[in-house]
Order: sequence, then structure tokens, then C-alpha cells
Amino acid sequence: MRILVVGGKGTIGQAVVEKLHEHELIIAGRTSGDVQVDLTSVSSIEMMFKKVGYVDAIVNASGTAKIQLVEKMTPEDNLVAVQSKLLGQINLALIGQKYLHRGGSITLTTGIMKDDPIPGGASAAMANGGVSAFVKSAAIDFTQGIRINCVSPNVLIESYEKHKDSFKGFVPVPAERVAMAYVKSIEGKQTGQEYQVY
Amino acid sequence: MRILVVGGKGTIGQAVVEKLHEHELIIAGRTSGDVQVDLTSVSSIEMMFKKVGYVDAIVNASGTAKIQLVEKMTPEDNLVAVQSKLLGQINLALIGQKYLHRGGSITLTTGIMKDDPIPGGASAAMANGGVSAFVKSAAIDFTQGIRINCVSPNVLIESYEKHKDSFKGFVPVPAERVAMAYVKSIEGKQTGQEYQVY
Ligand SMILES: NC(=O)c1ccc[n+]([C@@H]2O[C@H](COP(=O)([O-])OP(=O)(O)OC[C@H]3O[C@@H](n4cnc5c(N)ncnc54)[C@H](OP(=O)(O)O)[C@@H]3O)[C@@H](O)[C@H]2O)c1
Ligand SMILES: NC(=O)c1ccc[n+]([C@@H]2O[C@H](COP(=O)([O-])OP(=O)(O)OC[C@H]3O[C@@H](n4cnc5c(N)ncnc54)[C@H](OP(=O)(O)O)[C@@H]3O)[C@@H](O)[C@H]2O)c1
Repeated sequence: MRILVVGGKGTIGQAVVEKLHEHELIIAGRTSGDVQVDLTSVSSIEMMFKKVGYVDAIVNASGTAKIQLVEKMTPEDNLVAVQSKLLGQINLALIGQKYLHRGGSITLTTGIMKDDPIPGGASAAMANGGVSAFVKSAAIDFTQGIRINCVSPNVLIESYEKHKDSFKGFVPVPAERVAMAYVKSIEGKQTGQEYQVY
Repeated sequence: MRILVVGGKGTIGQAVVEKLHEHELIIAGRTSGDVQVDLTSVSSIEMMFKKVGYVDAIVNASGTAKIQLVEKMTPEDNLVAVQSKLLGQINLALIGQKYLHRGGSITLTTGIMKDDPIPGGASAAMANGGVSAFVKSAAIDFTQGIRINCVSPNVLIESYEKHKDSFKGFVPVPAERVAMAYVKSIEGKQTGQEYQVY
């Protein structure tokens, strides 16, 4: 398969890429990888696909959000997650579907914060919840065999040191196990799923 | 209690208002009600609260989304739900929290489409899923007793005729039963909940 991995140089992305070594991979990132894209911009996504052309699978392992307590959160704070984690991923799917071969797949990334809240995590949770519901619903609309899933990782062992004050009591998971869920989405046949790696 | 009901002249809103007759109610709508607001505009929400002042409960029963099959959906199509159902509600909560008395509550509206998808419903589902996850996460951040919940109605009996082609096989629920969930949120003590009236 020819597989586009946005965020393929990141912590999760690298682990996913390792599991896909027998495939032809195109790594995308804002500054890293084979091709540059900023998912917060519709025209940047369009330009990327014009360069990359048809693929069999589209994966995203990128997305940011502002961690901010709700009592201090402004509408502007919340737009970081809206533009990146939420619309970045949904626009990748909406534009990318036209560049997928029949039977191709889209795999997006959510996260545990929507199910198991952390302080200041409401904006990220919103984006995760939005992507997860979009995936479940979008799956029933495709008529050309295109599948769409997302992976919802717990905090990663590899990221735990940086985030441990926010994730007290969480049991972090290895990136390698999270990567298996992306493989299931890409190489399996399921659609409309959220794979929770908790 | 002094209660602000945005969308209080709508199908759900009217049923909610009926259940709250012993309270002091302020009805808001784009064109209807005691005070005008357009939830898609942050400054309009701010102006409304400046007029209305402090309340004990904020309820929203409004929100739109474009019904569009994912294969035809553009990033712009999706923005209708983002601005209205998603950010309209979240911005009402973010701005409104400053106008709530201690112990006050916020009650938002999602919908069954995020859990039980219908064709063309992915954009609405996204907004519903985003609001639901925001509510669950935001609830743990409040330090002044403010509560936040949402109600996720099935299609209403009162709206079924208009929507019946999209909701084949759904068993519609009476507005009066949906309204009870708003009452539970406003007059009860729970927080971070989504009341599913399916
Ligand atoms: N790590 C965790 O514990 C964890 C747990 C649950 C969920 N998640 C979620 O999983 C996703 C990836 O996490 P991660 O820890 O692997 O992130 P990461 O290590 O920071 O890597 C992010 C990758 O995404 C790219 N990227 C960032 N912004 C982009 C944009 N606007 N457009 C295109 N590419 C962009 C980066 O490329 P450049 O460096 O070139 O900019 C980088 O390759 C995030 O959404 C994160 O919230 C992470
Ligand atoms: N009806 C159902 O079966 C059902 C089921 C599940 C979920 N829902 C959701 O519940 C919500 C209410 O549904 P409904 O059927 O009661 O709607 P509705 O009858 O169309 O009433 C909508 C109300 O919201 C107001 N409104 C519309 N846009 C607004 C805006 N931008 N800012 C402020 N107020 C606005 C309207 O006021 P004006 O008329 O003055 O503009 C009206 O009072 C919607 O989000 C809907 O998706 C409905």
C-alpha cells in the first residue's frame, strides 16, 4: 500500500511508521518529513494532496490544543484545538477522500482526555469528542468502500515524563501498543470505530 | 431561580419553559423571546449577558448544522455546525459562567445522531460529540460550584414528520420527556453528565 502519514515524525507517528515498513510511506509534517503540510489550513491540505496524489491510506498523528482551565478559558483559547485537532483532522478526511483508491482508509487520532478528563483538558476533549463522533457517522456515508476510524491513545509512556503532572493516576501505554491500533485500522476491514488504547 | 433559556421559543425550548413556570424566565432567540442573541457571534453573547445580568441557570436549546453526505461535504459546509451547535454552545458556557451565581448551572443540547448515525449527519454528530466531551471535561474545572450538563434527545415526536426520511427506524420521543432531562440538570445537583433521552 501507498500510505500518507501526517505527523509521521512525531512520537506516535514514528511508532506507526515502524509497523508499516513493508509499505510505501509518505511522511508529512509542518517542517519534518517528505512533504510539508499545515493541517490548520485547507489550502495547505489541498496542496499536499496535489503533490502526493493517490494513496491507499491516510493517517494523521498530529494535533494541538491549549491546555487551559475552563474558568480562565476564552473563546480564542479554544480555537487552537478547533483549528488543529478538530478541523485539521476533519478537513484532512474531507479533502483526502478524493485522493483515496477504492477501499482506502482514513485513520485519525483522538485521545483519552475525552473519556477520562484531566484539569484544563476541556478544549482538547471537545476536539477528541468531535472527531470520534464524526468518524462514527461519516463511516456510513461512504459508497466506494472507503473506511474511516480513529485511535484514542492513553498518555504514552514515551510522553509521560513531560505530562505527568496532568495525568496523575493514569497508567501510560507504550507507543508500540498504540501503533497496533493504527495497523488494525489500515490493514483490517473495520470502519466507524474508535480504538481506545487505554 | 432566574433562568436564561436560549432557544426558548423553539420546539424543545417551549417544552422546557413549560416545566420551569415557577421560576423567573428570560427567553432568548435570534428574533424571538425577551432578548436577542446570535450564538454564532461571541460579541452578541457578551451583549446579551450585559443586558440580562446574573442568573442561576443557563440553558441552550438551539443550534443548526448542514445535513450533507460526507462524500459531498466541503470544509465550508462543516463550518455551519462548528459555528452554531459547537462553538455557539461552548462560547455561551465560557462567557456565561461569569454571569452565574454560585452553584448555578449550564445545560446544553446535543443529540442522538452522534451515537446512532444518520446519512449526512456527520457534521451535526461532530458538534454533538464535541459538546458532550467538553461538558464532561469542563465539569471538573469549576471551583465555585458551577455545574454543566447536556441533554441528548432522540428525534422528537413533534419534529418527526419533518425529519422522518432521515430517521427511519428511530422511535421518536415526546418533547415533554426531553424537557424532564433539562429539569434534572437545572434543579438537580449532578454535573458533567449527558442525559440521553433515547
Ligand atoms: N503523546 C501522547 O501521549 C498522546 C496521547 C494521546 C493523544 N495524543 C495525540 O496524538 C497526536 C500526536 O501526538 P504526539 O505526541 O505523537 O505529537 P508530537 O510528538 O508532538 O508530533 C507531532 C507531529 O505532528 C506534526 N504536526 C504538528 N502540527 C502540525 C500541523 N498543524 N500540520 C501538520 N503536521 C503537524 C509534527 O511535525 P513538525 O514537527 O514537522 O511540525 C510532528 O511530526 C496529538 O494530537 C496528540 O494530542 C498524544
Ligand atoms: N427537534 C428535534 O427532534 C431534536 C432532536 C435532537 C436534537 N435537537 C437539537 O436541539 C436544538 C433545538 O432544536 P428544536 O427542534 O427545538 O429547534 P427549533 O424549533 O428550530 O428552535 C430553535 C430555537 O433556537 C433559536 N435559535 C436558532 N438559531 C439561533 C442562534 N444562532 N442564536 C440564538 N438562538 C437561535 C430560535 O430562535 P429564532 O426563531 O428567534 O431564530 C428558536 O427559538 C437544536 O440544536 C437541534 O439540533 C433537536
